[in-house]
Amino acid sequence: MKDKDNRLKIIPLGGLEQIGMNITVFEYGDSIIVVDCGMSFPEDEMYGIDLVIPDVTYLVKNIDKVKGFFITHGHEDHIGALPYVLKDVNVPVYATRLTMGIIDHKLKEHNIINEVKRKVVTYGQTINAGDFRVEFIRTNHSIQDAAALAIYSPAGTVVHTGDFKVDYTPVYGDAIDLQRLGEIGKKGVLALMCDSTNAERPGFTQSEKTVGRTLDSIFADNQNKRIIVATFASNVDRVQQIINTAEKNGRKVAVDGRSMVNIINTASELGYLKVPKTTLIDIDELKNYPDEKTVIITTGSQGESMAALPRMAANIHRKIAIKPNDLIIFSSHPIPGNEKAVSRVINDLYLKGADVIFEDTHVSGHACKEEIKLIYSLVKPQYAIPVHGEYRHLIAQAHIAEELGIERDNIILLSSGDELALSEFTKTITPNAVPSGAILVDGLGVGDVGNIVLHDRQRLADEGIIIVVLSLEANTGTVLAGPDIISRGFVYIRGSELLMDELTAVCKETVSRLEDDGVTDWNKIKTEIKNDLGDFVWTKTKRSPIILPIIMEIE
Amino acid sequence: MKDKDNRLKIIPLGGLEQIGMNITVFEYGDSIIVVDCGMSFPEDEMYGIDLVIPDVTYLVKNIDKVKGFFITHGHEDHIGALPYVLKDVNVPVYATRLTMGIIDHKLKEHNIINEVKRKVVTYGQTINAGDFRVEFIRTNHSIQDAAALAIYSPAGTVVHTGDFKVDYTPVYGDAIDLQRLGEIGKKGVLALMCDSTNAERPGFTQSEKTVGRTLDSIFADNQNKRIIVATFASNVDRVQQIINTAEKNGRKVAVDGRSMVNIINTASELGYLKVPKTTLIDIDELKNYPDEKTVIITTGSQGESMAALPRMAANIHRKIAIKPNDLIIFSSHPIPGNEKAVSRVINDLYLKGADVIFEDTHVSGHACKEEIKLIYSLVKPQYAIPVHGEYRHLIAQAHIAEELGIERDNIILLSSGDELALSEFTKTITPNAVPSGAILVDGLGVGDVGNIVLHDRQRLADEGIIIVVLSLEANTGTVLAGPDIISRGFVYIRGSELLMDELTAVCKETVSRLEDDGVTDWNKIKTEIKNDLGDFVWTKTKRSPIILPIIMEIE
Repeated sequence: MKDKDNRLKIIPLGGLEQIGMNITVFEYGDSIIVVDCGMSFPEDEMYGIDLVIPDVTYLVKNIDKVKGFFITHGHEDHIGALPYVLKDVNVPVYATRLTMGIIDHKLKEHNIINEVKRKVVTYGQTINAGDFRVEFIRTNHSIQDAAALAIYSPAGTVVHTGDFKVDYTPVYGDAIDLQRLGEIGKKGVLALMCDSTNAERPGFTQSEKTVGRTLDSIFADNQNKRIIVATFASNVDRVQQIINTAEKNGRKVAVDGRSMVNIINTASELGYLKVPKTTLIDIDELKNYPDEKTVIITTGSQGESMAALPRMAANIHRKIAIKPNDLIIFSSHPIPGNEKAVSRVINDLYLKGADVIFEDTHVSGHACKEEIKLIYSLVKPQYAIPVHGEYRHLIAQAHIAEELGIERDNIILLSSGDELALSEFTKTITPNAVPSGAILVDGLGVGDVGNIVLHDRQRLADEGIIIVVLSLEANTGTVLAGPDIISRGFVYIRGSELLMDELTAVCKETVSRLEDDGVTDWNKIKTEIKNDLGDFVWTKTKRSPIILPIIMEIE
Repeated sequence: MKDKDNRLKIIPLGGLEQIGMNITVFEYGDSIIVVDCGMSFPEDEMYGIDLVIPDVTYLVKNIDKVKGFFITHGHEDHIGALPYVLKDVNVPVYATRLTMGIIDHKLKEHNIINEVKRKVVTYGQTINAGDFRVEFIRTNHSIQDAAALAIYSPAGTVVHTGDFKVDYTPVYGDAIDLQRLGEIGKKGVLALMCDSTNAERPGFTQSEKTVGRTLDSIFADNQNKRIIVATFASNVDRVQQIINTAEKNGRKVAVDGRSMVNIINTASELGYLKVPKTTLIDIDELKNYPDEKTVIITTGSQGESMAALPRMAANIHRKIAIKPNDLIIFSSHPIPGNEKAVSRVINDLYLKGADVIFEDTHVSGHACKEEIKLIYSLVKPQYAIPVHGEYRHLIAQAHIAEELGIERDNIILLSSGDELALSEFTKTITPNAVPSGAILVDGLGVGDVGNIVLHDRQRLADEGIIIVVLSLEANTGTVLAGPDIISRGFVYIRGSELLMDELTAVCKETVSRLEDDGVTDWNKIKTEIKNDLGDFVWTKTKRSPIILPIIMEIE
C-alpha cells in the first residue's frame, strides 16, 4: 500500500446540500486546484436572501497551495460565486473563451477584473498547476465552450465531465470529443466524476438542432402573429436558432431582458453568435414594423417575477404589452420549484388572449441514461463519483455505474465538506472534514444573515410582531409611560380595535402587578410581559407573533 | 327573445383566481342553489395564512333565496369551506353517502353538526329546490361516490361534471353513468360545465385498477423489505388496493397520519373500504412483526413538512424511523408547486439508505382529452363552460370544445364574480357583478388578515424590522431617553455591532438636529427618523427593512 500522502484528495465544498453551488477541491501534496465556483439561489425558507455562495474557509487557510480555478462552463451554478470568492482567494482562473468572456463581464461588474489573473484555454490544451496537469476536453451543453476536465495527478487521473450532453449535431462547433475521452480512458482513469442531472431519464437527450426544426414549423404555422420567445439567457445556441428562423421568415428580432442582452453582446463580440446586422433591432424600433414581421427574444421563461416576460404578462412591462395576436413560445422547461410561477405566467398570457406554446420547444443540456453509459464505457474508471444533481440523481447514476460493472464499493457519493482520499489501492472518506456550506448574500451583506436572523424572518413572515414599549423611572422603577402596543404583520387594525385594546389591558395588568410586587428587574418584567401576552394572543387567535417588550429608562 | 328574467344566472364565487376554491351559484327567479363549497391553500406570498375560503357576501345578501348546497364529492377543494360558510349561510347540504360522511366529520370538528340540515342523496335521485331540480349522476374520481349534477331549470338544463374521470373498471362500485348522460343529452342540454384539470393531456386516464397491478408486482419484487406507501388520504380506492396487495402477501398494515386515519375510519364505517380485521394493526404493534411482513400506509406524499412521511424522512417522526431495508412507494404525483418539497423527501429517504419508487405508481382522478371529448359527445351542450383548473386548462378544454363543433361564441370562460345570464337564445356576461374572492383564515381569525398585513409580513420576511424608541418630555419635547435601536430579522447582531452603532449615531444626529430646530411634531420626527435611517441603511447594506419609530411621551 502506498503512503497516505500519495493519495489524491477530493473535497466538494458545495453541491449536494445546496444544489448549484458547484465547487470541488482537488489536493495532492502541496498543490490544490479548484474546479468551478458556482452560486446557488436561496431555498424558499431563506427569506430575503439574494444568493448563496460556498464557504471557502479551507481555501483561504491553504491559500499558498491553491494554484487556480478551472471552470467547466459559463453558467451561474459554476461561475456565479467567483466575484465573491476571488476577493479572498485571488488565484488564476482558467476557462475556455466564451466562459471567460462571461466571467470577465461579471468581474467588471464587481470592479475586480484588474486584480484577477485570467487565462483562456483551448480544447486539448493542458495547464500545469503544481503537482497537477489539467486538460480541457470539448463537450456539449446548453451553452457553448463547455469542457470536461482531465485532471492528471501522481495518484492517477480524474475525469470531471462538468455539465454535459452528447450532441452529434450541435448548432455551433463540434460534437463532444468522444475519441479523446476514449484515449484517456484507455490509459487508465482513477475516477470519473459525471453529471447526474438527468440520470433518472431513460434514453438520449435530443440534439439542440431539433429545437430549430420545431421553431421553423411553429413560425410557418403562425405567419400572421407577433412571436415572443422566452428562453434561458445563457443558451446562445437557442438564441442563434431563433434568429436564424426569424431571418428565414423575414422577421426583425428585438431582445429584451438585461441578462439576455449581456450574454448576446458577449457571445456576438466573441463570434459565438452570428447576427445579421439588419435583423436585430432595438425594442423601441418594434413599432416601425408590422407585428407579424417581428420576434421578441426575452428572459423570464422560469416565471421569475422581475424578468421581462412575466412583467409583460402582468402588464407592468414599460415597453411591451401582450396583444391577442401574440404567440408566446416557452423554449424552456420549468426548473423544479418553478412550475407554479411558470404556470402563472402562462395563465396571464392566455387571459390577455394570446396563444402559448410550451411543449416540444426545448431540449435539455444534460446527458440521459444512455449518454452516461457511453461516457462510462469510454472512460472506464476505477471509481465512480456521481456529481451534479440532487441525491436522488446521484443514486440514479450510482445504479447505472453498478449496472455497468463498477463495484458497489467503488461508487462514492460525497456530501459537501467530505474529504475523499483516493489512490489506485485505497479510498478513505472523512465526513465533514472541511468547513463547507452556504454563505448567504443579502444585498451588500455577505454572511451577516445567519440562522437566527432567518428564524426571526420566518416568524415575522408567518405571525408578525407585537411590540410593547414601556418607560420606567431609573431608580424607582415607576411606570412613567406605557405600556403601549404596536403591531406589524399581525392583524389588520381596522376591525381589530377591540383585540388591540384587550392586548393593552393584559399588558397593563401585568405591569401593574409587577409594580405592586416591587419587581424592578428588567429581564423579569420583559419575560412576564412576553408570557402573559403570548398566552392571551394564542388563546384568542391561535397565533404566536414575536412579542418584543422594550423598556426605556428615564433618568 | 325571452324576457331577461327568464334566464339562468351562473356565478362562480371562486375557482379561477384561487384554484381549488370551487363554489358556483345558480340562480333562477327567486331560487338559488350552490354547487360545492371548497377551500384553497394559500399562495406562497400569503405568509402565515392557513387556508383560504370564498367570499359569500352574495349568498348572505340573498339568503332567502338560497335552497341548499349540492356537493359533487368529498375533496377539500369542494367541501373544505363548508364549516365556515354554513355559519353564515345555514341551508341544507345535499351529497352522496361517503361525501356526506366526510362532511359530517368536518362539521363535528367545528361543533356545528347539530345546526346543519343534511340529506344523503343516491345516484339517480332528484332533489327539488325552488325553481330547480338537481339530479345526482354517478361518475368516477379519485374518491368514491363522486357525482355529476344535472341541474334542471326553466331556462334549460346544465350538466356539471364535478371532478371526474371515466373508469370502466373502478375498484369500488360501478363505472360512470354514461348512459344517463347520453339520455339527458338527447333531451337537450343548455350548458356543460366540465372538469378541465387534465385538458392539456392527450389520451385517456388509466383505470385505478392498473395501480393495483403495479403494486402487486412491486410487492412481489421486494419480499424482503418493509414497504411504506405514501398516498392521498382521501383516495380510499388506492388504500383498498394497498390493503388487498398486503393481504395477498401476508403483510400486516399500519396506517399513519391523522387525515389518513380519519378517512379510513369514515370509509370503513360506511362500507366503502373492506379491511380484514387481522390485517390492520396499530403502529405500536409494528414491532411485533418482522419488517418484511408489514406495510405502512402514510400521508405526506406531497412533501408536506408536518405530514407523516416527511417527518420520517427528516428523522423527527415519533414512532417510525426509516431503515436501509425500507422501500418507500410514492403512490401519487406531485401537485404543481410541490415538486421541490417532494424531491426533498425523496432525497432524505435515499440518504437514509432506503429505496424509493415514484414512477408508474399513480393514476390521475381527472379526465384527459379523449374522456372530455366523450362527455361532450354524450351531452352535446349548446354552451360549453369549462371549469376546474387553471386558465391554461380551461383554454385547453375550450380548444377541445371548438374542435367538436361548438361555436367559439358559445364557449364561455368565467372568472370569479362574473355573472353569466343564459338562455337558449341569449347570453350576457357581466364581469365582476358579484363580490367574490379570497377570505384568508389565519388561526382562529377569518378575514382579519388583509393586504396590508400580508404586505407587512412580506417586508418583514425579506428585510426584517428596525425599531427606534425615543422618550420625549410631554410639553417641551426634550429627549429624556433614547433613541435606542432594536432589530429583528435584519442582521445577525454578533459581528454587526459596528453597523448597529452607526445606526444609533444616525438616529441621534437626526433627533438632536430636530431638537435644535425646535421640532416637536411627532409625525415630523418619525418621518425624519424613517428617512434618514432608511437612506443610511440602504447605502450601507442595499436592504430596506421596515423602520418603525416609536415615541413615548413622559408627563
